[in-house]
Amino acid sequence: MKFKIEKKLAGGLGRAGVLETAHGIIHTPAFVPVGTKASVKALTPEQVSALGGEVILANTYHLYLQPGDELVAQAGGLHKFMNWNGPIITDSGGFQVFSLGAAFGKEISKITKITDPSLLIPERFDDNSAPRLAKIGQDGVSFKSHLDGSLHYITPEKSIAIQHNLGADIIFAFDECTSPVEDLRYQEDALERTHRWAERSLQEHEKLNKDNKVALFGIVQGGRDESLRKKSANFIKNLNFDGFGIGGSFAKEDMSSAVKWVNEILPEDKPRHLLGIGEPEDLFMGVENGVDLFDCVAPTRNARNGTLYTKCGKINIMNEKFKEDFSPIDEGCGCYTCPNYTSAYLAHLFRGKEMLAATLASIHNLYFIINLVKKIRQSILDGNFREFREEFFTFYR
Amino acid sequence: MKFKIEKKLAGGLGRAGVLETAHGIIHTPAFVPVGTKASVKALTPEQVSALGGEVILANTYHLYLQPGDELVAQAGGLHKFMNWNGPIITDSGGFQVFSLGAAFGKEISKITKITDPSLLIPERFDDNSAPRLAKIGQDGVSFKSHLDGSLHYITPEKSIAIQHNLGADIIFAFDECTSPVEDLRYQEDALERTHRWAERSLQEHEKLNKDNKVALFGIVQGGRDESLRKKSANFIKNLNFDGFGIGGSFAKEDMSSAVKWVNEILPEDKPRHLLGIGEPEDLFMGVENGVDLFDCVAPTRNARNGTLYTKCGKINIMNEKFKEDFSPIDEGCGCYTCPNYTSAYLAHLFRGKEMLAATLASIHNLYFIINLVKKIRQSILDGNFREFREEFFTFYR
Repeated sequence: MKFKIEKKLAGGLGRAGVLETAHGIIHTPAFVPVGTKASVKALTPEQVSALGGEVILANTYHLYLQPGDELVAQAGGLHKFMNWNGPIITDSGGFQVFSLGAAFGKEISKITKITDPSLLIPERFDDNSAPRLAKIGQDGVSFKSHLDGSLHYITPEKSIAIQHNLGADIIFAFDECTSPVEDLRYQEDALERTHRWAERSLQEHEKLNKDNKVALFGIVQGGRDESLRKKSANFIKNLNFDGFGIGGSFAKEDMSSAVKWVNEILPEDKPRHLLGIGEPEDLFMGVENGVDLFDCVAPTRNARNGTLYTKCGKINIMNEKFKEDFSPIDEGCGCYTCPNYTSAYLAHLFRGKEMLAATLASIHNLYFIINLVKKIRQSILDGNFREFREEFFTFYR
Repeated sequence: MKFKIEKKLAGGLGRAGVLETAHGIIHTPAFVPVGTKASVKALTPEQVSALGGEVILANTYHLYLQPGDELVAQAGGLHKFMNWNGPIITDSGGFQVFSLGAAFGKEISKITKITDPSLLIPERFDDNSAPRLAKIGQDGVSFKSHLDGSLHYITPEKSIAIQHNLGADIIFAFDECTSPVEDLRYQEDALERTHRWAERSLQEHEKLNKDNKVALFGIVQGGRDESLRKKSANFIKNLNFDGFGIGGSFAKEDMSSAVKWVNEILPEDKPRHLLGIGEPEDLFMGVENGVDLFDCVAPTRNARNGTLYTKCGKINIMNEKFKEDFSPIDEGCGCYTCPNYTSAYLAHLFRGKEMLAATLASIHNLYFIINLVKKIRQSILDGNFREFREEFFTFYR
């Protein structure tokens, strides 16, 4: 894997670059569509490619359980299995462990809006009576499959072996994702584990990566605490990773500082992936603070729920007014959907529960977000990032 | 609309022809994919076109209720609304009236396998205590919307007006579809209505079809009775229709004789559409007996259920053995799905309830059926229809 920075953002950490993988080039910053179970939901690979996707991210936890990483290896790896010849990234499964464990059944996800300050009162999650599917130990995580209740145990070595079986171009070290409402002591313990697991992930990777085609990214954690984030960045940067992930379940207001603390420390010449983040305001924030890659299920999940991005903000296509709106979802948008279909047609498809609704909406939303990051990239090359941001948010709210 | 016969099947009623509509050419015999609610389920129009679809059939009843035919007219008609620039057919709604009325809640559909002979003992359906959503009167049909329970009344004039609003290239006269288990007296009454409605449909069409761009097909009914089928064909052929539909809910074993009786009477120079039929054996039977157009939801509905056509017969992709089958669904198949994906990948997508499963399976099944009819057409042109049929059924069972 090669990473070349083409231009830096004056007065910020941002940069436009080119990342070369074994399966092709990614122009960074880039938004990475998520294909959790080896399929970007409701889209063929050709549709993903046509809307501007250069790389996709698949999910280690889900594919390990179904159809199984060994089956994917037998099939010739993910690229062949799912007919996607471009770059593929797999996450390590750490986030799924978090959502099945500490966050299970709670209103906590990738971004948690902490509106109620009492949520910030340290509420420890190691209440053993709470229902959860995963339990974190020092060496790894034991969990029950959400599919059939079968028991599994994932260690850093196992996560790396699974990812090598899946055969992605970029894989991630196994980590522990923590919630922003965890207390400092727990964050410290979790960070110790993440760092130990990073070393073990790297060792296993070096054993398995004989032909040197797979890149391993280490993950920086540390929650919302400045000293822990910096400690983590300093620790992870000294290991022989090809790039870095910035992990965590964020309180929205913490994200930019956390990203900045970390990227000021990480080496400039290696790519950085902000895991699981993808709303417009977060993309601008991330790029400004030196992020090169983003992934998020939001564009496709929103699409399936009828929430569509437009230059003026998000709309819900189920709103009555769209029933007779014969204009495109987003006038002037260059996606496949907008010039060919009206809001009225999409409103009809959603009401009729037609599967094409999800396809057309996903194409639009992914195009919108991918193209937004492309335009942000271009603004760095053109030296007008801040003007572009201001212009974008004049309409988008 | 122009219809030209290119070659006739020696010793049969079959023919290969070309049907020219206001929106392009259909090579007949042809299989017409169904896009009930102005969308061929799980596919974009481009995908339908790429798999060989030349024409689609949309449903008058469903579109009248949602989004409404007047809204479709406002949108510029079905072609523009759904982004399909090829020929479009709409049915008249008669079959939906049947399935909401006499057949409602009963195991009777387009083809009923009469395994239990007691089913053939005349069981009259005009039992007013039976639950049903539609009621047939002499002038039309009153029914309750399956969506919101609202009351509607459709007459032949109304059906034609709705279809003109939808703006298809080929539309159908309003008819009453009867069940094969109805007694003769009911069939006679129903046929009288269908014939009266045919005349009224034609009159309304002549009023609305000012620019002469829309073709109206009359529908022959008559159930399983030879004299009624012939009576109907003789009556309908003398009206000024542009083509004909052969309607009815068939007992499988009756279908070929019913089609033959009718097509021996209908004028040779006008196209004939066998409504709602599309299994391989029925396609061969229909073509041999002079059918030019077929439509059926089976290929796409089967696809969504994981039932896939292969040269050796139908398979269920959920069968355990396909989990590790790294060959295509149907070796040598020329569809988009087969060369690009394995049975194992489809088995995975179906297990994971991924929407792409329905898309890839629908592409395959529609290609299989459309291409089968294309090959049947070619066999007529090449003078080897019977050899081709024998060859096909050597493997397909």
